[in-house]
Amino acid sequence: MTTHAAVVGAGLIGRAWAIVFARAGLPVCLFDVDAQALAKARGAIRRSLDDLVEFGLVEDPEGVMSRIRVEADLERALAGADYLQECGPEDVEAKCRIYAQIESVVSPTTILASSTSGIAASRFTGHLRYPERCLVAHPVNPPYLIPLVEVVPTPATTDAVVERTMQLMAAIDQIPILVRREVQGFILNRLQGALLNEALRLFRDGYVSAADLDKTVKHGLGLRWSFMGPLETIDLNAPAGVIDYGRRYGPLYRDIDLQRDAADPWAPETLARLDAERRDELPGEGLAERQAWRDRRLMALMAHQHATRND
Amino acid sequence: MTTHAAVVGAGLIGRAWAIVFARAGLPVCLFDVDAQALAKARGAIRRSLDDLVEFGLVEDPEGVMSRIRVEADLERALAGADYLQECGPEDVEAKCRIYAQIESVVSPTTILASSTSGIAASRFTGHLRYPERCLVAHPVNPPYLIPLVEVVPTPATTDAVVERTMQLMAAIDQIPILVRREVQGFILNRLQGALLNEALRLFRDGYVSAADLDKTVKHGLGLRWSFMGPLETIDLNAPAGVIDYGRRYGPLYRDIDLQRDAADPWAPETLARLDAERRDELPGEGLAERQAWRDRRLMALMAHQHATRND
Repeated sequence: MTTHAAVVGAGLIGRAWAIVFARAGLPVCLFDVDAQALAKARGAIRRSLDDLVEFGLVEDPEGVMSRIRVEADLERALAGADYLQECGPEDVEAKCRIYAQIESVVSPTTILASSTSGIAASRFTGHLRYPERCLVAHPVNPPYLIPLVEVVPTPATTDAVVERTMQLMAAIDQIPILVRREVQGFILNRLQGALLNEALRLFRDGYVSAADLDKTVKHGLGLRWSFMGPLETIDLNAPAGVIDYGRRYGPLYRDIDLQRDAADPWAPETLARLDAERRDELPGEGLAERQAWRDRRLMALMAHQHATRND
Repeated sequence: MTTHAAVVGAGLIGRAWAIVFARAGLPVCLFDVDAQALAKARGAIRRSLDDLVEFGLVEDPEGVMSRIRVEADLERALAGADYLQECGPEDVEAKCRIYAQIESVVSPTTILASSTSGIAASRFTGHLRYPERCLVAHPVNPPYLIPLVEVVPTPATTDAVVERTMQLMAAIDQIPILVRREVQGFILNRLQGALLNEALRLFRDGYVSAADLDKTVKHGLGLRWSFMGPLETIDLNAPAGVIDYGRRYGPLYRDIDLQRDAADPWAPETLARLDAERRDELPGEGLAERQAWRDRRLMALMAHQHATRND
């Protein structure tokens, strides 16, 4: 039985989700309260598909477009949907209102998944009649290029809903991970934050420039991390695996852990100095062009991975 | 004027450095006190070169081999060397002895760079007659695939020595970064350690499996980090750059920073559980094969980057 997907919110993330569902062969209906956003959606999606075609990442853009419907009426948009991906504003009160509206028109068995990058779903679904079908499915932007999705149930979410969501994500070529309990920032942003906090401290204390910190990752750490995780990396970096590695390097990493001082690494003075170095490297007017460069590099990388993947 | 390089220590790292120098056209002499290690060195280097040729990363393996000399006599090995890369054991006393021997036969102006991954060079060069030409040039393994080199002067190192080392690394197609003052773990391992410490805490506390932590990086964070650093990443992830990003996400990352508990993330119980999950994923007898897979993936990635690099 084909899953019917609905996407609420036709911004950047909502449009990207529509591509992900439709690329995998699912019919998807895209809704937004903002008629202008909705009017622009198909054109913007078409342009993203053209980029994907150029890099060999989509073969049948017309087929993908044919499976995407836009709909300005919430009830009609959600009729027959088995799975709903909410992409509203990152604001608890706004989400509470949106979920109440959604629940008033949607089937009680439709899974309601939020794209939120930071708010635990229990905070905006606890007031619903059927909160057991709610959870987070947090994508990385843009999900049609970066496959990771963090699936985060609330204490009320049933196992069946978690399992169906994990299966659906795998079926549409995303890579779901299960975050077993709600935790601030989920997993991806906590890992990113830990590295950024250390990077900013080293920068603040004058050990290294911003450009050299970036080089350390892009010409060093990040190469292996683009095809194997940090735990597999250390497992392969000591003759007898992770326990052996922990014996060799654990004390060093523990020292680093204990050396962190109490000051906020995100202090305004640090950010001002970082901004000065970044703007030397890339003037503000170059940001948009560099974002386009990033997206092309990412597409080229994914095309490379599709050609070489064997895990 | 051609730089003449010498490499002391014919283990994995020493042999890899010999490839890096010779691939860039420099004559290099490889020394080891262990005659057996030296006898095996040329064959092992030849096999590494064959792998590189297969992935289009070396074009003239005979030329590379012709520039590599092995030499069992330290004085003859170092005669005429402008730059020496020390690849001895990771042990302060052993390095102290090695540096005393080196200084007794080498020109006073030869740069002495250590491959140490964790020991500040001031700890094993302070006793020398000419400590001002000593510093760390820490590679990532293997340096012929991963270009980052951390250049770390001691308080005694002259600016001219730092500059010549940075220039030499750039000339041989490595990417040097300058670590302005000695710091435990340098930069790369401090960043890696910060991420690992957070990953192990999330794993220990049952939020996520080891496999899902790895997926979070390899199918999420690590993709962009393979071609842009973490600071450039956040600079492009908010409409007005890093200060804007800090305003939006700094408080989240600060909370994560403050949530770390006092317990050692590398506790034996945590590593034992991690080992159990890793061995389910990859039995111990599969480690060597997986290491060979990793090296092939890395070569394929570097071939991809050489074809697409435009920064």
